[in-house]
Amino acid sequence: MRMVDLIGKKKRGEALGEEEIAFFVDGCTRGEIPDYQTAAFLMAVCFRGMSREERAILTEKMALSGETVDLSSLPRTADKHSTGGVGDLTTLVTAPIAAAAGLSVAKMSGRGLGHTGGTVDKLESIPGYRTSLSEAEFLGQVKKIGLAVVGQTADLAPADKKLYALRDVTDTVDSIPLIASSIMSKKLAAGAGSVVLDVKYGSGAFMKTPEDALDLARAMVEIGVAHGRKMAALVTSMEFPLAPWIGNAIEVRGAARILRGEDPKGYGIRTVAVRLAGEMLSLALSIPAQEGLARAEAILSDGRAYRKFREWIGAQGGDVSAIEEDRLPRAPYTRTVLSPAEGWITRADTGKIGTSACLLGAGRVKKEDSPDLAAGLELSFVPCGRAEKGQPLCVMHASDPAKFDGAEELFLEALTFSDAPADPPALIRETVRGAEDPIF
Amino acid sequence: MRMVDLIGKKKRGEALGEEEIAFFVDGCTRGEIPDYQTAAFLMAVCFRGMSREERAILTEKMALSGETVDLSSLPRTADKHSTGGVGDLTTLVTAPIAAAAGLSVAKMSGRGLGHTGGTVDKLESIPGYRTSLSEAEFLGQVKKIGLAVVGQTADLAPADKKLYALRDVTDTVDSIPLIASSIMSKKLAAGAGSVVLDVKYGSGAFMKTPEDALDLARAMVEIGVAHGRKMAALVTSMEFPLAPWIGNAIEVRGAARILRGEDPKGYGIRTVAVRLAGEMLSLALSIPAQEGLARAEAILSDGRAYRKFREWIGAQGGDVSAIEEDRLPRAPYTRTVLSPAEGWITRADTGKIGTSACLLGAGRVKKEDSPDLAAGLELSFVPCGRAEKGQPLCVMHASDPAKFDGAEELFLEALTFSDAPADPPALIRETVRGAEDPIF
Repeated sequence: MRMVDLIGKKKRGEALGEEEIAFFVDGCTRGEIPDYQTAAFLMAVCFRGMSREERAILTEKMALSGETVDLSSLPRTADKHSTGGVGDLTTLVTAPIAAAAGLSVAKMSGRGLGHTGGTVDKLESIPGYRTSLSEAEFLGQVKKIGLAVVGQTADLAPADKKLYALRDVTDTVDSIPLIASSIMSKKLAAGAGSVVLDVKYGSGAFMKTPEDALDLARAMVEIGVAHGRKMAALVTSMEFPLAPWIGNAIEVRGAARILRGEDPKGYGIRTVAVRLAGEMLSLALSIPAQEGLARAEAILSDGRAYRKFREWIGAQGGDVSAIEEDRLPRAPYTRTVLSPAEGWITRADTGKIGTSACLLGAGRVKKEDSPDLAAGLELSFVPCGRAEKGQPLCVMHASDPAKFDGAEELFLEALTFSDAPADPPALIRETVRGAEDPIF
Repeated sequence: MRMVDLIGKKKRGEALGEEEIAFFVDGCTRGEIPDYQTAAFLMAVCFRGMSREERAILTEKMALSGETVDLSSLPRTADKHSTGGVGDLTTLVTAPIAAAAGLSVAKMSGRGLGHTGGTVDKLESIPGYRTSLSEAEFLGQVKKIGLAVVGQTADLAPADKKLYALRDVTDTVDSIPLIASSIMSKKLAAGAGSVVLDVKYGSGAFMKTPEDALDLARAMVEIGVAHGRKMAALVTSMEFPLAPWIGNAIEVRGAARILRGEDPKGYGIRTVAVRLAGEMLSLALSIPAQEGLARAEAILSDGRAYRKFREWIGAQGGDVSAIEEDRLPRAPYTRTVLSPAEGWITRADTGKIGTSACLLGAGRVKKEDSPDLAAGLELSFVPCGRAEKGQPLCVMHASDPAKFDGAEELFLEALTFSDAPADPPALIRETVRGAEDPIF
């Protein structure tokens, strides 16, 4: 088999078979296929796409390219994944709800490039929290309290790592089959029996339109179902930040506020976190979605989720009192941004708001960067609400006051002030649930 | 400027500007752009194409990526190029006609991969012929006798060499803008003021259909005109071998026969060679095509072309008597292939006939191979003519008789025997001449 022939097949729009995809993924992982052939193949996939069968096989081969986690000793294993957005701290709320309902949430999270760090970076803002556990510790903690969140091991789906690095520098990122197989390969390798996905759309999200987000959601659900996983996906809006907290320690503080009962006006964080937990319960416990949602809501409202959260952080070495007593890292400098105009804040460019947080130091520009765990934004405007001139719109946090001017400029550019009010955008656009009939 | 952004532009179907194309070609030539980015870009070009302006600029930047030949001291400089076919020995006939008419033909020819060697390999079958001359010798010979044919120097359009090597292994060869810029970059660098192209179509040619060949012809003529060259292109049939001689020494012997007055029945070699020479005369002497054709015909018929041929071969060190006395290399083994059937030979798969010659040793499979200069085929069937069972169809020549069986099988597979006669395919399908108005 020759890689150049596989490139040619894909270029002509033909589907590759299982042996061909295995040849590609194995050759890629072992470094036997040169990067230039992989790059040409990836570009051909961007133009020609992949069939449902190809996607499922590609994902499986990528999942099997490295270590896989065996969760078979655990009951009701459940995982969640978000394609990422601004103020997206759902894992910190959803995972404790799911664990409190009796699910086993053995979660590996990434760091990644983004406006802020990944879930693992956020958790590292809690003094003492250990993001790296041995496999025995990891499984033992989940067995005991239902929940552990650790960093992704280097050998999880190494084929995806290779492909992703290449996609990033060859502008072949925005392909539904490639995105879907990248995400799902890690989910398959991570071993949970049910997976709930939050696929976001908007300027601050990976997918720019609800249509693309729905396509991606369907592709991922299909792949999971093809491999025997229970699957559901929400397509949710990133037209405004999901929460008024954008940063690392800032988001952990925000999560604790949600878990204690807050529901910040105009922001979707609580609603989405509970819906995701409800879908997880529905899949893992085989109960109707409506019942899963009701249980999730009850667990959050009556404080069980917050108890589970504290139990989890403590079990993993984190200083729970630092959260309870608000002693998480704080940046030495703050600036309050005042409204330059009056009007209804009818639109927000979440991409720019995210980049503003990144400029303050909250995220990574390069893989080697360390996010500033204290930096970020606390928003005080209400999405689609009224702002008067001079009213505070947000508080910026940074270690270096020189960063404020650029971040403020970008933040203000992100907001649209209108003379007339507008309805807030629908938060959850679609729900995709795993079909009964797998494709093979 | 970042290559990943140029990939993205091309992927979205946008045209690149001059600075961007220069950045790409320079970065590629200097090895500063990694092959995986170049490969992704080339694949995007395969899907999106290039505008006329982009093609002209790309070609120019590739031409200027290395050495260029200065022919300004020579009058009426003229070049020709064929995209390659089976039994295509036109250069050996056309170039002497053009030189005998007073044109300066300072020609660089490739070796390349193919069914037989390139023109330079064919010439090397003449004892003593020097394919490598110093620049002073090269220009001096053309000044004196109007004609020299040497091997292409390593530094002619090095960007093309890099790109071509990459295209070959990433299945990005079959793109009109990439083929056109590859060929024309070398023609621009080689310096002639007028260029006539023979673009062939058929199974044994680079382009498979007349439509694709016409597209390529137009693209190349446009590029040449954009850079101030006088241009013409013929689109010619490779539905049957162009000549009954396929090999290296075999084709040189065949060329001498044409130059001495033969016109093998049913084969297009004489017609095409004279038409190409006529177009060259028309461009270089600024005379009507019809008059160019008439002069070329006269020069071939009255022996002036053969005299020029012998003068050329002798001037370049070749043993002219070896041609006149038929002492060019001969293979130690021959096999006559007899017709297994009776009927009208209405079709020939020229790709298979070429590969049959290659199996006998006449061509190169890998760049490092040396073609067997004596190997090849002499055809004795007449295209669209009648064959009786047991009649000789060809004589095969090889250094190793073990090669005959496979070559014979493929040769016979190539021929279609029909019960009814058919008209021979049109030989010259289109003539494209340089437009008066260059694109910039």
